[in-house]
Amino acid sequence: MKAKIYVTLKKGVHDPQGEAVLGTLKHLGFKDVKGVRVGKYIELNLDGVPADKARHRIDAMCAKLLANPVIESYSYELD
Amino acid sequence: MKAKIYVTLKKGVHDPQGEAVLGTLKHLGFKDVKGVRVGKYIELNLDGVPADKARHRIDAMCAKLLANPVIESYSYELD
Repeated sequence: MKAKIYVTLKKGVHDPQGEAVLGTLKHLGFKDVKGVRVGKYIELNLDGVPADKARHRIDAMCAKLLANPVIESYSYELD
Repeated sequence: MKAKIYVTLKKGVHDPQGEAVLGTLKHLGFKDVKGVRVGKYIELNLDGVPADKARHRIDAMCAKLLANPVIESYSYELD
């Protein structure tokens, strides 16, 4: 079972990396870009783990390591 | 139009960040995790740009700034 995990800053949390990307995109001529937010994309394999257990594992991994629950939220897809 | 862009290391490219995450997950007790790969997830808005133009813009942004074409590949979704 393959998991695709998206970790993003919560709404309202300042995103300096996103602002830097936005500034550079505008400088490069992409004038109609707005609201850039940069997060993490994590792929991992949970071989032999059924989907319901995989969801529990991923929630635990995000709580313990992959996301900072104070400022980040996460979502995921299972393949 | 909102774009969700996923930038990942190409297959075969060494991913030290992914290896570090994998090692820590195993150390935390997640023994059945394998093959962690860490990439970037970028959200941006292209207000008032139709879908076909947005695709061109995103390809150009990835080529010029968001992805390193030597070692990274990207994909995206438009909302």
